[in-house]
Amino acid sequence: MNAEDIRGFFADRDQLNMADYLELEYYLECIGDIEEALAHFCSEQSTAQWSRIGYDEDFRDLHAAKVIRWEVLEELAELSYPVEQAATGRIHACRVTIAHPYRNFGAKLPNLLTAVCGEGTYFTPGVPLVKLLDITFPDSYLQQFEGPKFGIDGIRDMLGAYNRPVFFGVVKPNIGLRPDLFADIAYESWLGGLDIAKDDEMLADVEWSTTRERSELLGKARSKAEEITGDKKIYLANITDEVDRMIEQHDVAVKNGANALLINAMPVGLSAVRMLRKHTQVPLIGHFPFIASFARLEKFGVHTRVITKLQRLAGLDAIIMPGFGNRMMTPEAEVRDNVNECLAEMGSIKPSLPVPGGSDSALTLETVYRKVGSVDFGFVPGRGIFGHPMGPKAGARSIRQAWEAIEQDIALDTYAKSHPELQAMLDK
Amino acid sequence: MNAEDIRGFFADRDQLNMADYLELEYYLECIGDIEEALAHFCSEQSTAQWSRIGYDEDFRDLHAAKVIRWEVLEELAELSYPVEQAATGRIHACRVTIAHPYRNFGAKLPNLLTAVCGEGTYFTPGVPLVKLLDITFPDSYLQQFEGPKFGIDGIRDMLGAYNRPVFFGVVKPNIGLRPDLFADIAYESWLGGLDIAKDDEMLADVEWSTTRERSELLGKARSKAEEITGDKKIYLANITDEVDRMIEQHDVAVKNGANALLINAMPVGLSAVRMLRKHTQVPLIGHFPFIASFARLEKFGVHTRVITKLQRLAGLDAIIMPGFGNRMMTPEAEVRDNVNECLAEMGSIKPSLPVPGGSDSALTLETVYRKVGSVDFGFVPGRGIFGHPMGPKAGARSIRQAWEAIEQDIALDTYAKSHPELQAMLDK
Repeated sequence: MNAEDIRGFFADRDQLNMADYLELEYYLECIGDIEEALAHFCSEQSTAQWSRIGYDEDFRDLHAAKVIRWEVLEELAELSYPVEQAATGRIHACRVTIAHPYRNFGAKLPNLLTAVCGEGTYFTPGVPLVKLLDITFPDSYLQQFEGPKFGIDGIRDMLGAYNRPVFFGVVKPNIGLRPDLFADIAYESWLGGLDIAKDDEMLADVEWSTTRERSELLGKARSKAEEITGDKKIYLANITDEVDRMIEQHDVAVKNGANALLINAMPVGLSAVRMLRKHTQVPLIGHFPFIASFARLEKFGVHTRVITKLQRLAGLDAIIMPGFGNRMMTPEAEVRDNVNECLAEMGSIKPSLPVPGGSDSALTLETVYRKVGSVDFGFVPGRGIFGHPMGPKAGARSIRQAWEAIEQDIALDTYAKSHPELQAMLDK
Repeated sequence: MNAEDIRGFFADRDQLNMADYLELEYYLECIGDIEEALAHFCSEQSTAQWSRIGYDEDFRDLHAAKVIRWEVLEELAELSYPVEQAATGRIHACRVTIAHPYRNFGAKLPNLLTAVCGEGTYFTPGVPLVKLLDITFPDSYLQQFEGPKFGIDGIRDMLGAYNRPVFFGVVKPNIGLRPDLFADIAYESWLGGLDIAKDDEMLADVEWSTTRERSELLGKARSKAEEITGDKKIYLANITDEVDRMIEQHDVAVKNGANALLINAMPVGLSAVRMLRKHTQVPLIGHFPFIASFARLEKFGVHTRVITKLQRLAGLDAIIMPGFGNRMMTPEAEVRDNVNECLAEMGSIKPSLPVPGGSDSALTLETVYRKVGSVDFGFVPGRGIFGHPMGPKAGARSIRQAWEAIEQDIALDTYAKSHPELQAMLDK
């Protein structure tokens, strides 16, 4: 590219009608001339060749992604992570904001992903390391999406659960248990005070535990638990499946008694979530497999914040995400970011319930609550309930007792003295 | 876990009926006790709790993933890439082979991904860095998939193109060009000798160039080119879209004259590819956006080899992949691996045409051919054809001339002396 070519990929924000653009934040490690690398970076993700040979025309005015802000963070002696066959030259870590015209692809999730984290993003000459840090949508774009059908308020209304966290539990043993025994365990946990008994993200429709049979048994157990406790309960059935079976799986599960559905968003694809959103009669709750493969490292891949926003846009009413603590190997600020992105103002799109999770139990509830900073979250133990030494009913009870202690501002070990289920967790 | 718990996640290959298991190769960086970390790694991706509280039972016999081979590659002073909140202790780089029972999830791509590169894989205590290096399927598993409908032979038969590479070209300007002008350019390239004129992976169904209009114009241009040249041609239309629109997009594009379809496999989801495979009347060709975000780094994420295998399993007749040379920042051995995985024996699944690409032109054809080592590949220039100084027809001609030189074993610059289109590329 010559100097004039390069200039065509830079703009002042004021010169652009930002209602036509997504704003993208990237961390880049550039090799060689920085402005040239940034121009290539924009060109590769938009109009890579902007005129026909022999014609005096320029598609960049309408179709080019453009740098609207950039700064060099530091010069590096070497790339943060080695990349074989990377170019050679001086290396600069940069942060760049790009205005990307969404007319290039429209309000479609697969095409959006292709534009902002596709070939162009990861195969720009001189830019071997890239992390997409954030994405911001103008209202005109958000209005073309449906977003969550129920959202936090919808889930709370279903349960009649207000002014407190929503209590989930992952039924364990997660893999291998017969549906009738699975239902027994879930039933116990509901009696103990759980709101939502859920399938593990790895358990879906399998020969030894079909969605049909499991949802029927769990649906019956749920009704019985609701009758006995007088509280509303949710059975969250995992219908992650081939995308051409998901609608049918929805229909079977809901008809039989599941009243929320779990979907592994990246494995089925965000677009399949959006498809299901248009059809669903019950809340859709997302789980996070695969995301860490491109999100864990600080300086390469795609930030979880971006995926949280896209999951909300796709229509998930609740988003299960890696939570606090060393167990989930996710920086605390990142977990907070993701919680906040579920709740933040987002045009016409409803808030999703954030569910930060990972090896939780009665002993971690207060920490999670303090870190989230509000009651608007879901709490999702697995073995913390179903591995409780006194069984799943006691496990669920221990969680509710931990919440009572927090509400009444009583130290956990003090409250445990009169609450054996909680005491058993402290003793464990 | 105690010593006995740990033992339950190790097995000899001979003790297992390997027809029930996928074989997974991982690179891991383990912190602390290695065998305990490996047992956790298996537990987290299969039956995390293998008995109910108070029952003497063990689901591991049928449902546990098990280590069947492992070796320590080296002890490391620090993790290859820093991970915030990783555990502390001695660090060992390991290579491990795991037998994972597919009865846990069945012949379903989203559930397969969830099991082998999901939460369990990336959130095992003591294993902050993981790369899934390879996956091998028993025939009993492969038989449950459809695989490519046409495969290499089907594409060759459509074109009548044998004993040579298949010549693709990405129409450029890729973004912003009116459909009628787009068709003119593609037409020229077909006249010049291109087999397949394709949409860019970023160009799909947009207001300023709808699939309906573009495929109609390109379909007509294709027929005209076929009439004039006497050769069969393909218009490869990109129908990457929300998954609930893909079948309709297929129908519109094919009815109007597209005779192969491009899909961005990861952005739509591998399962959406499989869905389309069941419906399609024409070859499906996959493009690679998003894959680099989890595949570029040597020691974290998922190897491209795994994704190539899964794309073939999902039914792609051709797989466009990052090719040779520094431009695509992919180690040469990795490109070769991916080419080979398209062609290798895979039970009942047909071979896919490998299309290693990236800034190709007449000048890179011989290198690609020598590195692939056979004529069974697709060659996919973009600007190398549509940015040719004499125009797209000359661009396509320069590619065919480069192939003639190779076939006749004549040096490129010698052959160029009597072939001005080739000479123009050498002069560029």
